[in-house]
Amino acid sequence: MKKKKKVNASIIIIGNEILSGRTQDKNIAFISNWLNDNCGITVSEVRIIPDVEKIIIKNIRSLSKKFDYVFTTGGIGPTHDDITAKSIAKAFNVKYVYHKEAYKILESYYGKKKFNDGRKKMAKMPKISKLIYNPSSAAPGFMTKNVLSLPGVPSILNSMIENCKSYLVSGLKIHSLTLNLYTVESNISHRLGIIQKKYKKFVDIGSYPFFRLGKVGVSVVSRSTSKTKLKRVNKELHDLINSKKIKILNLN
Amino acid sequence: MKKKKKVNASIIIIGNEILSGRTQDKNIAFISNWLNDNCGITVSEVRIIPDVEKIIIKNIRSLSKKFDYVFTTGGIGPTHDDITAKSIAKAFNVKYVYHKEAYKILESYYGKKKFNDGRKKMAKMPKISKLIYNPSSAAPGFMTKNVLSLPGVPSILNSMIENCKSYLVSGLKIHSLTLNLYTVESNISHRLGIIQKKYKKFVDIGSYPFFRLGKVGVSVVSRSTSKTKLKRVNKELHDLINSKKIKILNLN
Repeated sequence: MKKKKKVNASIIIIGNEILSGRTQDKNIAFISNWLNDNCGITVSEVRIIPDVEKIIIKNIRSLSKKFDYVFTTGGIGPTHDDITAKSIAKAFNVKYVYHKEAYKILESYYGKKKFNDGRKKMAKMPKISKLIYNPSSAAPGFMTKNVLSLPGVPSILNSMIENCKSYLVSGLKIHSLTLNLYTVESNISHRLGIIQKKYKKFVDIGSYPFFRLGKVGVSVVSRSTSKTKLKRVNKELHDLINSKKIKILNLN
Repeated sequence: MKKKKKVNASIIIIGNEILSGRTQDKNIAFISNWLNDNCGITVSEVRIIPDVEKIIIKNIRSLSKKFDYVFTTGGIGPTHDDITAKSIAKAFNVKYVYHKEAYKILESYYGKKKFNDGRKKMAKMPKISKLIYNPSSAAPGFMTKNVLSLPGVPSILNSMIENCKSYLVSGLKIHSLTLNLYTVESNISHRLGIIQKKYKKFVDIGSYPFFRLGKVGVSVVSRSTSKTKLKRVNKELHDLINSKKIKILNLN
């Protein structure tokens, strides 16, 4: 068996509605959690860009070279502002054509009479694309080279994500350990820095203030592909917590 | 009086906790809405990047050239993973030093005895930075050239945003008009495309499916700096709606 290694991905959110603040994005956290939990893939960069062909092409070209996988969300519906498929075809210099199977799926879903031009458009994609099936509303996503294109509507995207799995090579899972502490960051920052320095090759330690039930606290999150190293960091964090007599909050 | 023109901005979310999916971002929509409503500034790109100095430097350099303003969120606290200020200093090749006023604010907030190294760190920033005052928790944000750095905790960021205003040159406000229609995208996509083509220089029309109260619908959002052009598009959209006998939903 091949030894697993680190695999990364980026996400491109294509959509003026997210950029303008009209719509709160929900896909980033969902995709990132799913990729880590199910495939051991880490999301290393996210971009939110407008529905502009030139900009989509530029970002697809640059990020598909930089990361193992690129996920796009949005812009694969039937309207004029849905230009993801066409832009990806242009980015990779391949033809933008009807995908035979996608055409059949959509034709049978809508029925021949109701299969109008808008709906037909959803069967058009880069010539080299493979389908990502859609159990909610028929219109498939597609994978073009290392770019996986999904719709923007969270409920539909969520229902399709499992169908991406067979296209992905899994990597090492990142394990994480969270300690919610009833303290302030500046009380632990010095020793936390020392612990991070000691384990910097293996463990990432993050510190995030929170407010809950009227109390200020800090979540210390340690992340690593090694459970053993994570345990050692956990031990050192508990030494710090005990020496400062900090209370651990159970937020569940 | 100078005639206003289009002013744009980008947002860089600095934080492993957002990338990993652990924390749902709430700052993008807030900043974008605030900038448009209060300053007529349009957010044209968002990036979410990890707490890695090299990556922060690269993005600051590239986006500060490309957009009128860059907003960063996150990484300005007292812990080892708070490296935004130092990275921005390096990006602009300026010294990373104590800001005298920030030092005084923090010293008086915590008291001399409790003003430890972690807390002092929050007074360090690029030499050329101007302060963005923080009415919630003292530690100021700062503006370095055209880059405005704010904290990642939404409640604190929200309380500071008004203090950015005096540093920003306002642009033309984007007005928007939303029609929530009880129909499906493919029913209107053809004529919507024709209307968009006719007004493409002045109005951006977006179409977004929604699900509410068990019903499928489409929000058609038109955005423009011109109220007159928006009214004309609205008239044409109503002609389309009436001819197709589509019901308008009141979602408020």
